Amino acid sequence: MGKQTIGFIGTGVMGFSMAGHLLTAGYPLNVLNRTREKAEPLVERGAAWFDAPGSLAEASDIVITIVGYPNDVEAAYLSDGGIIDSIRPGATAIEMTTSSPALAVRIAQRGAAKGVAVLDAPVSGGDRGGREATLSIMCGGDAEAFDRVLPILEVMGKNIQLQGPAGAGQYTKMCNQIAIAAGMLGVCEAMVYARAAGLDPSHVLDSIETGAAGSWSLSNLAPRALAGDFAPGFKVKHLVKDLEIAVESAQEMGLNLPGLDKAIELYRMLESDGEGESGTQALLKLYEQGRVV
Amino acid sequence: MGKQTIGFIGTGVMGFSMAGHLLTAGYPLNVLNRTREKAEPLVERGAAWFDAPGSLAEASDIVITIVGYPNDVEAAYLSDGGIIDSIRPGATAIEMTTSSPALAVRIAQRGAAKGVAVLDAPVSGGDRGGREATLSIMCGGDAEAFDRVLPILEVMGKNIQLQGPAGAGQYTKMCNQIAIAAGMLGVCEAMVYARAAGLDPSHVLDSIETGAAGSWSLSNLAPRALAGDFAPGFKVKHLVKDLEIAVESAQEMGLNLPGLDKAIELYRMLESDGEGESGTQALLKLYEQGRVV
Repeated sequence: MGKQTIGFIGTGVMGFSMAGHLLTAGYPLNVLNRTREKAEPLVERGAAWFDAPGSLAEASDIVITIVGYPNDVEAAYLSDGGIIDSIRPGATAIEMTTSSPALAVRIAQRGAAKGVAVLDAPVSGGDRGGREATLSIMCGGDAEAFDRVLPILEVMGKNIQLQGPAGAGQYTKMCNQIAIAAGMLGVCEAMVYARAAGLDPSHVLDSIETGAAGSWSLSNLAPRALAGDFAPGFKVKHLVKDLEIAVESAQEMGLNLPGLDKAIELYRMLESDGEGESGTQALLKLYEQGRVV
Repeated sequence: MGKQTIGFIGTGVMGFSMAGHLLTAGYPLNVLNRTREKAEPLVERGAAWFDAPGSLAEASDIVITIVGYPNDVEAAYLSDGGIIDSIRPGATAIEMTTSSPALAVRIAQRGAAKGVAVLDAPVSGGDRGGREATLSIMCGGDAEAFDRVLPILEVMGKNIQLQGPAGAGQYTKMCNQIAIAAGMLGVCEAMVYARAAGLDPSHVLDSIETGAAGSWSLSNLAPRALAGDFAPGFKVKHLVKDLEIAVESAQEMGLNLPGLDKAIELYRMLESDGEGESGTQALLKLYEQGRVV
């Protein structure tokens, strides 16, 4: 039996690398992307181009999506003639966009009604994790479906965990973003304090990054911000989107998360400044401009 | 020429280990501690007991202090008949308490006026770092004095950095505590969100601790808090003391640090709850009790 045909929707920075790994691993691939040119190199490597989510889903055993915003996810899956309408019973869908947990549950229920398992499986690890196939993949959904598609997930990532039923992958990704958000306040506050105290903040990092203050953000983002390098590893506008989902779901649960609230307030301010395409380390600018209250 | 005689004031959890390493390294040791019994094992190993900072300083080439609060530091150094009054010109003092940068500058000036270099050199790394002599030591003060005492600092720590003039060690330690403080908000908010979402927070850690959300606190403190283990690695009351110093100095610099402000508010609430002796991971309790606003 040949390998299952995978339909892949969304060949942006992350999706392009992930789809490429699937081709390399020998999976027949159907592709679709809003901007066709970005998918061209995959088509040249043998992927079949499709013009609509529905026709792509019809022609695939497994459908993978990694698109932009929850609205895009909803349109791809739930619109008339979309994935759920068109996908074959017995097929499986893997929704890898960072998106709303409630939407993930809704899509999984719609899928289940026609015998299609839909897993939510957002990733972390950034463009580098995508290129090197070292992504962390946080999954929610049916355990049997998870086991079936695990070999495919293993082509794209490394730390792959089933966290619970539908929505659990998205909830886990939100935990990730919440920890990052307030953590960035700490990183920026330490750095702006260092500068105001007349210290060399880069040298301060030598003292503090190896101990109890240590974090991925402190070691990876603080040095870039201090060097005036605001090129995106992860973009401000994408963090704002993620934190909006986190805030909304936290409100639904009746949780007060003041660190998250302050972080989204500041990142929205940064986006209004035209920094949406900058890396999240640009938060340091607001502190240095004395605009944080 | 024999080794210099070191006078060591403050043989609490940290100081006891540090003084022990100096004895092991062969330094003649004079000791003083508020509670004499805690210093007894050092006296049994050959340290000489002194009843007052002044008489200890008089009998020592190097004076090291690691006491409780800025008030204790001020009393030891600046009171009549204290260290500065009694220490021999040409001697060096190393003040290792986490204390106020402004006080460190004041003591260094008083020392300089009588030909005594006083370094501020607070540490991080906790009781374990103390026991294993792997402390990070953040120093401020005269560079020549730093070079002179470096062999002594190397007996107690590993990552030893001169960060600038008097006060720079304390300012660096404050950067460390500021990064930790807001970081703990992120850790606790991620964990309480995970529980509220019906996830297993420990399993969530498997997904998120190795990526961009990763931090020392997430890997070391979150698992303890989730297991209901609130034994202190670092005590709430000590973090409150440190954050009060950070807030005061940030205000002097005209900085707004909302992550720090929220953290000290919550840690003070925790201390009022009688949790001063608990480890800093006890912050999770406030979130779980729904008392964070």
